[in-house]
Amino acid sequence: MENPWKTKSVLDIYDNPWIKLEEHQVVIPSGKDGIYGKVHFKNKALGIIPLDESGNTWLVGQYRYPLDEYSWEIPMGGGPENEDVLKSAQRELKEETGITAIKWTKIMRIHTSNSVTDEEGFVFLAEGLTMGQTEFEETEQLKVIKLPLKEAVEKVMSGEITDGISIAGLLKVARLMNV
Amino acid sequence: MENPWKTKSVLDIYDNPWIKLEEHQVVIPSGKDGIYGKVHFKNKALGIIPLDESGNTWLVGQYRYPLDEYSWEIPMGGGPENEDVLKSAQRELKEETGITAIKWTKIMRIHTSNSVTDEEGFVFLAEGLTMGQTEFEETEQLKVIKLPLKEAVEKVMSGEITDGISIAGLLKVARLMNV
Repeated sequence: MENPWKTKSVLDIYDNPWIKLEEHQVVIPSGKDGIYGKVHFKNKALGIIPLDESGNTWLVGQYRYPLDEYSWEIPMGGGPENEDVLKSAQRELKEETGITAIKWTKIMRIHTSNSVTDEEGFVFLAEGLTMGQTEFEETEQLKVIKLPLKEAVEKVMSGEITDGISIAGLLKVARLMNV
Repeated sequence: MENPWKTKSVLDIYDNPWIKLEEHQVVIPSGKDGIYGKVHFKNKALGIIPLDESGNTWLVGQYRYPLDEYSWEIPMGGGPENEDVLKSAQRELKEETGITAIKWTKIMRIHTSNSVTDEEGFVFLAEGLTMGQTEFEETEQLKVIKLPLKEAVEKVMSGEITDGISIAGLLKVARLMNV
């Protein structure tokens, strides 16, 4: 499928350690000139659903600054572009929950907000778990709870969980595992 | 739950008809100074899952400029902040598929990418359908297909659909309706 958009030029607007904003001068599919503000994400979004032998998973609660809202989510974090996503996911799970896992299954590739950003995420199912110590980053003030996967899925269905990657990942695992 | 972040000042960086980028000077939860690049979305993201009496739904295919990738999604569009989200959803479904519907059910509130953006989306199930003419916007070059809801859900499970709102919405409808 050929790209119906043409890029005429790109203006760098903003850059920080996590994102880059560009304004693209474009020709839109109908042939007219236009602009496109594109937010490039420097990290992959990695969501992890740990699952123990009793059918429990873990959720992480934190205050999300851009939303000004508290959010319960699957363990999640950012993976640098030049790092293998599995390795990033393993590190994030360890940092946030202290858990290491033997069996890792990549269950999803997801584009979180494709009208404005190029953010790409991956969700992993992690099984064969060993508990350990958390290693929170200093920007984080996290609460971690353990609960049956079925209850986490109910928090999606009731609307209590609003994070996109968490909703998508939990519902996909539920369907894969008939929970 | 009290917000553990403190905002010291806000610098406006960029503004276009769809997004606004701000750099916030903050005190992070641990007490140190930091910055936060926040992307404000001027529109709500509205996803619609139309469902006819035979169990069919519709998907929309388009080239997504920020991804440089073709994407099959549920009918979707943006609703201005000052407009009722149901009205916006009804307009977007009509524009993209020509469909009007009698019964509308809001099935999801979703935050698409809450580490950087404040984008909020809503997914509606639309039933009691009447077919009509599409009214594509000029930036759009859309393909529309009709298919059983079950097949759309299979496209999620196989990884063919990667758009976050589409994945979340289709899996939730599938679970709600035992598809």
